[in-house]
Amino acid sequence: MTTKMAINAKDIFRNQHRMIKFIAQSIRLCSNQSLKAAQAAQQLQKSSVDFEITASVNTQYTHAPEPVKHDKDLGHLFKASQLTVRLATPQQLQPKPDNDEELGFGRLFTDHMLKIYYHKSLGGWQKPEITPLENLVMHPAAKVLHYAVELFEGMKAYRGVDGKIRIFRPDMNMARMNLAAQRSGLPTFEGKEFVQCLSRLLTIDSEWVPHTDTASLYIRPTLIGIDPTLGVASSDSALLYAILSPVGSYFKTGSSGAVSLLADPAYTRAWPGGVGNRKMGSNYAPTINVQKEAAARGLQQVLWLYGEDHQLTEVGTMNIFMFYVNDQGEQELITPPLSGLILPGITRDSILNMTRQWGKFKVREANITMPMVCELLNQGRLLELFGAGTACVVSPVNRINYLGQDLYVPTMEQEKPVHELIRETLTDIQYGRVDHPWSMVID
Amino acid sequence: MTTKMAINAKDIFRNQHRMIKFIAQSIRLCSNQSLKAAQAAQQLQKSSVDFEITASVNTQYTHAPEPVKHDKDLGHLFKASQLTVRLATPQQLQPKPDNDEELGFGRLFTDHMLKIYYHKSLGGWQKPEITPLENLVMHPAAKVLHYAVELFEGMKAYRGVDGKIRIFRPDMNMARMNLAAQRSGLPTFEGKEFVQCLSRLLTIDSEWVPHTDTASLYIRPTLIGIDPTLGVASSDSALLYAILSPVGSYFKTGSSGAVSLLADPAYTRAWPGGVGNRKMGSNYAPTINVQKEAAARGLQQVLWLYGEDHQLTEVGTMNIFMFYVNDQGEQELITPPLSGLILPGITRDSILNMTRQWGKFKVREANITMPMVCELLNQGRLLELFGAGTACVVSPVNRINYLGQDLYVPTMEQEKPVHELIRETLTDIQYGRVDHPWSMVID
Repeated sequence: MTTKMAINAKDIFRNQHRMIKFIAQSIRLCSNQSLKAAQAAQQLQKSSVDFEITASVNTQYTHAPEPVKHDKDLGHLFKASQLTVRLATPQQLQPKPDNDEELGFGRLFTDHMLKIYYHKSLGGWQKPEITPLENLVMHPAAKVLHYAVELFEGMKAYRGVDGKIRIFRPDMNMARMNLAAQRSGLPTFEGKEFVQCLSRLLTIDSEWVPHTDTASLYIRPTLIGIDPTLGVASSDSALLYAILSPVGSYFKTGSSGAVSLLADPAYTRAWPGGVGNRKMGSNYAPTINVQKEAAARGLQQVLWLYGEDHQLTEVGTMNIFMFYVNDQGEQELITPPLSGLILPGITRDSILNMTRQWGKFKVREANITMPMVCELLNQGRLLELFGAGTACVVSPVNRINYLGQDLYVPTMEQEKPVHELIRETLTDIQYGRVDHPWSMVID
Repeated sequence: MTTKMAINAKDIFRNQHRMIKFIAQSIRLCSNQSLKAAQAAQQLQKSSVDFEITASVNTQYTHAPEPVKHDKDLGHLFKASQLTVRLATPQQLQPKPDNDEELGFGRLFTDHMLKIYYHKSLGGWQKPEITPLENLVMHPAAKVLHYAVELFEGMKAYRGVDGKIRIFRPDMNMARMNLAAQRSGLPTFEGKEFVQCLSRLLTIDSEWVPHTDTASLYIRPTLIGIDPTLGVASSDSALLYAILSPVGSYFKTGSSGAVSLLADPAYTRAWPGGVGNRKMGSNYAPTINVQKEAAARGLQQVLWLYGEDHQLTEVGTMNIFMFYVNDQGEQELITPPLSGLILPGITRDSILNMTRQWGKFKVREANITMPMVCELLNQGRLLELFGAGTACVVSPVNRINYLGQDLYVPTMEQEKPVHELIRETLTDIQYGRVDHPWSMVID
């Protein structure tokens, strides 16, 4: 399995994980998929890792989320200790997918879901319940269907090398979700209690967490306003729920493994005074047609620009990072600052924290503009461009179509690409190949 | 009932309408509400109308909506001739409200609804059906609940002086709805066929159309994407539906009958490259919290500003109009142009068309800025400021809180306010006091 004689502790973990995965796959797949996986594993093994994973979080760089401030008239909060469970009958259980490569993104769902209703008229949050995955029943005037009173989070459960299930920095998701609730006139809640309920759901549906490190179980916490009234106003009834979906990779990439982008200044994702920094449904509907246009032009994602200087803000549904040689001749990783225009990504925050701890290159939060990208490309100083997010971890970019011109970015041509190191480091934490405080084990 | 000796044809119609209304109210109300209505009617009678209603539409000013362009892969369209009806059982029928003043906005719904499903996998649009008003059942991953894949229209059915039910310029709503569908990656449809289905629904629930000209039956056509998949992408399944709600006045006003506004440049409703000119749910969720803030400051609506020069774009969910004395010393009605930042209101279009036909003052589409408002107020040249929309027809503004300062607008202090003339003219058309091609009678 390895050509290197000196095997360090991390490699042992990685190989151990692969063994478990191989066994699991042999049992589950009985197909040539395992062969492919083995080949892919061998391929991966060839790359060497330059950077150490620091099994700690440097508080200098991490901003732990602040406790949520609840509205005075919120009413009572829910507690995980009140959780009730109604299990699916054997007849309701769905067959689990036996081919991770055909999972796609968010098409299959597990057997159970978590639901917590909020009714101001009943005093606040109701008791959390886990039920079989079932359709939601709502009044046709429900605010969510008219005024987009809705927000969500994206998390993942990973099957670790030790067979345990892990989730990644859930406190960050909970903090962000509560900020979005506040911005939407929806009720806030205690994130810890929700994560405890979620852990129970994950335990119940644990067999849905793929036994591989090329897939995971996507967690979709959602909060919707369900008041059956047509006034554009806060919703006095809401439903907080979570569904789970085993997922492969989110994005279709070209044969290179990288994505091509449409950068058209005619479209804007967010604006000062808007909600571009909150994970609200309303940020997404307006992007669908633009994404369609990108696809029609043979491009895989949209690079969202802002302002007269064509600042890069996000790519698809990801934060954007650029690795380049700065004016001082130093290698630097740069990403746009949290100005209110971009989503405060948890992968983004983790990458900034990690790479600052590495100290191997400069790390900076500052605006990147398209003219800057063009100039760096002309001078051969742009090394890598990639998106970062929960769904894809990192997603390298190799081409941008900008003002009718194709800009080729050499992201995939670097010998030791930084985006690959970042991906490996993050997935090492997520799949438990190293212990790390960002990983939370589901008992 | 009238102090004037010369009663023209319009007054006859108006009085006839009031008689019908009085009889209907006497039967339905048996309360002191009818007395109040009579007093209000007498009050109204005292004002005189300066401007003639032209019982025609000047094509010079009206832009008839263009036919919708359907996507090639849309599949088959639905036809009103395929409509099926499942009536509510007597047990399902809801009691009708017997007090129009307590209707509020969009809290009560009629007995039936219209539903038309779209499934690309089944070839396109399915057959339209009218059913009892019932809850919608949808998968918890339905795109509408996550990415705000939703849009709507606002229309009204009016009980005319002749007892007939009328709707106002439905072709305009249908054109706008199809534009929003295109922008949202949702399927388009033939507006005429939908209006025919809607007419049938109105006939079935006709007794819900209030017998008064202070209330109406609000029509809420809605289109939502219901694909149960979590990719941010076009929805291959959709539901087009309509619900009906008897409504009084939309806005709470101060004792003066006018509204006060919060104008805070920190919040932006729409921006270039966004979807501010489409009636999509995503434009509304971000406004709820700002509206809450306005209410907390004792103000009734939000005046949405844009840009460094603080352009007035919309007020609450309405278009904005200003009547003032321009630099040439002429009276002028001005409203922001359809720049992509504001909703192309049907009331807005009607007001522009009507007042241009009147030819009594200048009418112009141009930007209005807050500095301009302040200067005009200082010089005593700002006469009236009002919002215009389907829900409220016109809504006069008497105060703006701008940068911490209260600006008092003399809208309610004009002797013959233009906004009142506009309201009367529009409601005369809507309630059939005059025949007009903008009114469509439901047979």
